[in-house]
Amino acid sequence: MTYIRETIVTTVDVAGIVHVAPLGIIQQEDGWVIAPFRPSKTLDNLSAVPFAIANYTDDMLVFAGCLTGRKEWPTVAVEGFPVPRLQTALSHSALQVVSVDDDGLRPRHFCKVVSEAMHAPFTGLNRGKAAVLELAILVSRLHMLPQEKIDAEIGYLTIAIEKTAGPDELLAWSWLMQRVKEHQEAADSKGKSAARHPGTA
Amino acid sequence: MTYIRETIVTTVDVAGIVHVAPLGIIQQEDGWVIAPFRPSKTLDNLSAVPFAIANYTDDMLVFAGCLTGRKEWPTVAVEGFPVPRLQTALSHSALQVVSVDDDGLRPRHFCKVVSEAMHAPFTGLNRGKAAVLELAILVSRLHMLPQEKIDAEIGYLTIAIEKTAGPDELLAWSWLMQRVKEHQEAADSKGKSAARHPGTA
Repeated sequence: MTYIRETIVTTVDVAGIVHVAPLGIIQQEDGWVIAPFRPSKTLDNLSAVPFAIANYTDDMLVFAGCLTGRKEWPTVAVEGFPVPRLQTALSHSALQVVSVDDDGLRPRHFCKVVSEAMHAPFTGLNRGKAAVLELAILVSRLHMLPQEKIDAEIGYLTIAIEKTAGPDELLAWSWLMQRVKEHQEAADSKGKSAARHPGTA
Repeated sequence: MTYIRETIVTTVDVAGIVHVAPLGIIQQEDGWVIAPFRPSKTLDNLSAVPFAIANYTDDMLVFAGCLTGRKEWPTVAVEGFPVPRLQTALSHSALQVVSVDDDGLRPRHFCKVVSEAMHAPFTGLNRGKAAVLELAILVSRLHMLPQEKIDAEIGYLTIAIEKTAGPDELLAWSWLMQRVKEHQEAADSKGKSAARHPGTA
């Protein structure tokens, strides 16, 4: 039983340049574990400046955008804290790394909560937002999944998108689907190339 | 494109007795449509007292509870408004019915927003919460779905539950799964009965 909040994590390098990344943070005792992949900018930043903001948002454009090369999202300073927060965060937790358990692939940074703040009201669950989140996770794992599983999941998620999504969710969905299409085209082209030159694929 | 917020709607009868029901509210122009099924307590209440609160919460115990006979959730008064809100709502919209379009099955109550308020911070998306919501919708439609589709959806949703849910989401999930089990047992028993008495089912 490991409760995971799907968040947008902001970190900074020594020059104060912000990095914005979608990351699940894992509940542990009275704190949260950030486990960024190696290599990653979030990992580098946490090593240099051991603070982060977990931004709580349901703006799916940020999740889908970060996965599709759209990483410039406005941030605002948090008083007394070295890392800014996402401007559109509904709320946030300011986190300080207190220990690191390095398993090689995904070093687990155990963080305590330094402060928290609320910025805007939650406006209710939406099945379309949840479907975009699931597609975002699928897109981050395309290279590990068989095409039939990708197609089946997208078929299932499409129902909620068609029934409940608004313009922002549809745009976020389209950004991610473009990635799925590119992946399929690359796979098809590889398949054709292998067929033309048997034994050389 | 019809954006739907999945909410907990509170209404009252003429005596002021509160009714709590999970309902998707549909965005329309600058307001929200509540379309309760006929017959339903929400429909009766809106006819008697044309006001409602759309409670925005991600507490899945309330959604799953309302669908499984656990309808007593604490409410608190909203100043200057005839309907109370859910105590655990993160935020709410106070709604007033301004027109009704009665299609027979699900009369569409178009509501304008009278006021809104924020009560507690959103703490981030969680895939387990989204899976509970999908299971809740599935449970409300069990009688319309073939068993294979039910099993396939539950299989898919179980992944997010196992990976990301906390104690509350697991409890909400278990309440709903009990309903699925009862439905299957009833279907099995009907099937057996039909097999024992061919032609009488």
